[in-house]
Amino acid sequence: MTDHRSGPRRRGATLLHAIFEATLAELAESGYANLTMERVAERARTSKASLYRRWPSRADLVAAAAGHALPADEELPDTGDLRRDVLALLRMIADRFDGPLGAAARGLMAETLHHPELGRELRSRTTGNRERMMRAILGKAVRRGEIDPDVLTPRVVLTGPSLLQLHFLQYGAPVPDEVIEQITDEVVLPLVMQKGWHRRTGTTPTGWIN
Amino acid sequence: MTDHRSGPRRRGATLLHAIFEATLAELAESGYANLTMERVAERARTSKASLYRRWPSRADLVAAAAGHALPADEELPDTGDLRRDVLALLRMIADRFDGPLGAAARGLMAETLHHPELGRELRSRTTGNRERMMRAILGKAVRRGEIDPDVLTPRVVLTGPSLLQLHFLQYGAPVPDEVIEQITDEVVLPLVMQKGWHRRTGTTPTGWIN
Repeated sequence: MTDHRSGPRRRGATLLHAIFEATLAELAESGYANLTMERVAERARTSKASLYRRWPSRADLVAAAAGHALPADEELPDTGDLRRDVLALLRMIADRFDGPLGAAARGLMAETLHHPELGRELRSRTTGNRERMMRAILGKAVRRGEIDPDVLTPRVVLTGPSLLQLHFLQYGAPVPDEVIEQITDEVVLPLVMQKGWHRRTGTTPTGWIN
Repeated sequence: MTDHRSGPRRRGATLLHAIFEATLAELAESGYANLTMERVAERARTSKASLYRRWPSRADLVAAAAGHALPADEELPDTGDLRRDVLALLRMIADRFDGPLGAAARGLMAETLHHPELGRELRSRTTGNRERMMRAILGKAVRRGEIDPDVLTPRVVLTGPSLLQLHFLQYGAPVPDEVIEQITDEVVLPLVMQKGWHRRTGTTPTGWIN
């Protein structure tokens, strides 16, 4: 057992980073079912109490670690162009899949295949990260008048990241850029830029732009 | 070792069915890496030679078994209405996921997570099944003048089945019908019924319908 009191004291961002890396590594190696605050604390060379102070449950900790491994809000693309923003965000996510987050995602999926119930609580939290990032860049296009906010259901918003994730899970990393371009140009852009959806379904547009 | 010569002789469809069920069961239990013609023959109570006569490799056998587990061409929906056809096909696939095909798919995914290279040869063959089924029902809508064949790239055609597959892999079976309706109404129909794609991308429509 590592003595977490040895070595220099770490604080703030450095310690957080160590804790999140340890969480992803544990998730990749042992899975969510076997992940304990104790093992994470040991691996990160900190105390269990300091984990519980911040995250009341392992689900909270894992969701925080996954969120930390994704681009921060200030890193999100903002090129003024919807296509460039979507491409940049999907590339950022693909890039993260080729690291500790990807290994953790593979570990979690391996576990979910045998025990679907284990991943449910967790997945709603981690899926939220991807929806938030996509909404951040799609929201800019809404404000520029490029897209109709009414079409941005959670299912639509998550379609690009979902196709990327399935490709990563099936074929591993790195995800070829050709795949990212196809997902962007053939699926995401046509979906979010669709017009006439309301005419077809007979629903009333409530927030039509243009 | 089971003596495959015992029991009544089986021919044609009955024997084929036994072989394909045995293949899916082996895939679910042992994975693709460990699947051998010998073990499938043993489980199906037939001879290795009779397998090799029909399928030159285990990839051929597995692809045939996966194809057999999916709806046959004559079972594919043909209601005269695109939305009803898409819903019916996705429900058929979801229904298959809740059986031996689903178990095999989970086994194969578990393996692919650790050895992505193992699934590649196989996946191009089994993905072909889903693209073929979707194209069968989308082709009818093209002939009815409802959709533009130019938008039906492989990526677009496979988007619905891919979202369904990811949901199944993450949350298990049965897939809630609400999810199938969302995939159909919010993603598949808007994608295949899109207009103006060529105007947006500046490409020339080559097979425009309407």
